[in-house]
Amino acid sequence: IETESSAEVLAMLEGLHPTDIAEIMDKLTMDEAKYLYLQLDGEMASDVLLEIPENMRRRFLRVLPPEVIAHQFVEHMDSDDAADIMGELEEEVVEAVLSEIDDKEQAGDIADLLEYDEDTAGGLMAKELVKVNENWSVQTCLKEISSQSEEIDEIYYVYVVDNDNILKGVLSLSKLIQKPTHSKVKELSNEDIQSVRTDTSQEEVAQIMEKYDLVVLPVVDQIGRLKGRITIDDVVDVIREETGKDYQMVSGITGDVESTDNVWRLTRVRIPWLLIGTAGGLTGAQVLSSHQDTLNHIPAMAFFIPLIAATAGNVGVQSSSIVVQTLAAGTRKFDTLGKKLLKELGVGLITGLFFALLIFGYNYLFSDSYKLTLTVSCTLFIVIVFASMFGTLIPLVLHRFKVDPAVATGPFITTMNDVLGLLLYMGVAHFFFNFLG
Amino acid sequence: IETESSAEVLAMLEGLHPTDIAEIMDKLTMDEAKYLYLQLDGEMASDVLLEIPENMRRRFLRVLPPEVIAHQFVEHMDSDDAADIMGELEEEVVEAVLSEIDDKEQAGDIADLLEYDEDTAGGLMAKELVKVNENWSVQTCLKEISSQSEEIDEIYYVYVVDNDNILKGVLSLSKLIQKPTHSKVKELSNEDIQSVRTDTSQEEVAQIMEKYDLVVLPVVDQIGRLKGRITIDDVVDVIREETGKDYQMVSGITGDVESTDNVWRLTRVRIPWLLIGTAGGLTGAQVLSSHQDTLNHIPAMAFFIPLIAATAGNVGVQSSSIVVQTLAAGTRKFDTLGKKLLKELGVGLITGLFFALLIFGYNYLFSDSYKLTLTVSCTLFIVIVFASMFGTLIPLVLHRFKVDPAVATGPFITTMNDVLGLLLYMGVAHFFFNFLG
Repeated sequence: IETESSAEVLAMLEGLHPTDIAEIMDKLTMDEAKYLYLQLDGEMASDVLLEIPENMRRRFLRVLPPEVIAHQFVEHMDSDDAADIMGELEEEVVEAVLSEIDDKEQAGDIADLLEYDEDTAGGLMAKELVKVNENWSVQTCLKEISSQSEEIDEIYYVYVVDNDNILKGVLSLSKLIQKPTHSKVKELSNEDIQSVRTDTSQEEVAQIMEKYDLVVLPVVDQIGRLKGRITIDDVVDVIREETGKDYQMVSGITGDVESTDNVWRLTRVRIPWLLIGTAGGLTGAQVLSSHQDTLNHIPAMAFFIPLIAATAGNVGVQSSSIVVQTLAAGTRKFDTLGKKLLKELGVGLITGLFFALLIFGYNYLFSDSYKLTLTVSCTLFIVIVFASMFGTLIPLVLHRFKVDPAVATGPFITTMNDVLGLLLYMGVAHFFFNFLG
Repeated sequence: IETESSAEVLAMLEGLHPTDIAEIMDKLTMDEAKYLYLQLDGEMASDVLLEIPENMRRRFLRVLPPEVIAHQFVEHMDSDDAADIMGELEEEVVEAVLSEIDDKEQAGDIADLLEYDEDTAGGLMAKELVKVNENWSVQTCLKEISSQSEEIDEIYYVYVVDNDNILKGVLSLSKLIQKPTHSKVKELSNEDIQSVRTDTSQEEVAQIMEKYDLVVLPVVDQIGRLKGRITIDDVVDVIREETGKDYQMVSGITGDVESTDNVWRLTRVRIPWLLIGTAGGLTGAQVLSSHQDTLNHIPAMAFFIPLIAATAGNVGVQSSSIVVQTLAAGTRKFDTLGKKLLKELGVGLITGLFFALLIFGYNYLFSDSYKLTLTVSCTLFIVIVFASMFGTLIPLVLHRFKVDPAVATGPFITTMNDVLGLLLYMGVAHFFFNFLG
């Protein structure tokens, strides 16, 4: 790349989508990327800036003076994207950039957006929208839309407000152009409209947009004044993030990583859950050593420790995952706590019986200790029933106490059930060998 | 509900969104729901039909004659929704319904859509779109859009085609109304347009729409003729489904369940992976019984079996999940196989060393067998390194052979690493106690 002239590079990049350019830059060294980047014009440069990875963007922005950031990038961006980028900068830089922006209205919009919590509707929304007064005629409306839409890339809906900026309804552009020009906006607007408040959580925004198949959702303040709008592409990111979080929890990873991250980061996100697992393993060791006599008496008992522990862990993870996923889907059609536990008891009993009989059959054929066979089968049955009950109950309890139930999946449940399984194993063995023995 | 008059019920339901009505119906008995449903008019009834759960819809449709299905529901639906519903019916019913539809064009559209594989762009797309010829003027265009859009709820874009229906570009409605009426469509249309082919997989469609932040994506055939369009709300379902699938795999569940499903279904999706876990547990028992002498010689070794097995499993799941999630994100910025394994080796070495030292310290304080302490620490180190390498390698190998790499997460990796961990434990013990002993 270094040897090519800038004209050639530009010719090469022309016609490429900003996302593709960002991908190319990600493969280059920092210097090459910088060189490439400087060839792009304002509009394209700001689009590409939004698509490059966060750490690269930080390094880019750190070396640039506020006036360049303001004129080169921020002025070409929509308010929501600008606010996201500014949120990554330090406070004094933000102030400097805001004061450099020539369009004071845009600067004001960005400053407003920076006030909202990142995880709320206010943090997701953009200020750019087209709105018309309910008392206007179609003709005034079309003229106004033309002038308002100059700065906006795409219009999906036109919002209808009253004199106090209270959201009243929505007009679809396609309906508008089919109507005679003297009709009133009020008569054409659809007043049956979904909206959220600025402090609605992003999870709830995602659920509403998914449930009603919406592409854009207006955001209002406490008294119903139109403040902005959220488009579905930002919500897709929320959904990805949200499901990704649950996936990480169940696999025992803390924090968002990709296999392309560096070794240190990849290690750091894995240690915490492994520590919990280790604590569980050591507790298991304690349980076993305090039942040393039983183990010394029947050494073959040790053979089935992995089976008991693994089954307990697997059953627990399954139960908790089903609960967590149902909670995450946010459906209101939800069984009562009692019914859920009763059903899980049913599942546990059937599964437990199935595996107890399976192992009983296996050991009946291959083991010569009748008591051990009984012990292992009985333990397996009890462990499966308990593990499934715990797996269901714990996420529900956490959810009730407003803790993310997903923390109770994966290694946490596995570890807890491992220890529980060992305790039960030793208890059952004690019963069969000492009392029946 | 039964006691209320139908007028009251209707008044109650008026103003509710179809999704909300579907939710209410889901809470009623079948008879109540049927009664409620019959109060709704055609448009609303078909919207509600799309939102009720699949098994309820099946039962509804089974009792209705084809002509009612055709006139009451299908004629009020968009082609993609109609095709989805028809895909759930039996073939002879589909034919009967299609022949009952009065609008032959709509019947033809649905029949076309039924041809495509459900998991491809063809299966996701709808036929309803607004297209204009590139040679028309803005005025002809607006007139044509008005007439075409009567049957379409929302227009986001107007597609531009040539005389052979080959997709040429896109017009945004907001741009259109700002231009003088004599301009040619060709001059206004944006020719830099993303499209997919009918046989593109739904995963790829989702990736493209996410990557480029698209709301609608046109679908073309092999030679570029415009066939339909996909909207983002259908893709959100694909994304949910896809991430849901990976989540199920890692938690050891086969098939899409919610905690509201019945006990039998909840049990059935859990047995398969538990069987694999049990097979692993029994293999573990075999490994241990074939090293019976070592265990008899040092009974305290049994105490650490759960620790070794759990750590091996946890590390394996972490490694495989990171790989699977990176593969699922579909980013092209992907390390080479060698680099990835080298990094994972680094992670394994650091993590292994950390936990080996931790356990060494613990055992040094609380255990009196120096050899056992050494054995457990060394095993832990080796097991962590191996488990992380396997966890990374296996999903990658599966991916190369076009098998969904997600099957190699959760119980599969846990089980494999459990057995591997036990083998290593016995091997290391053999070494320390026999050769150094």
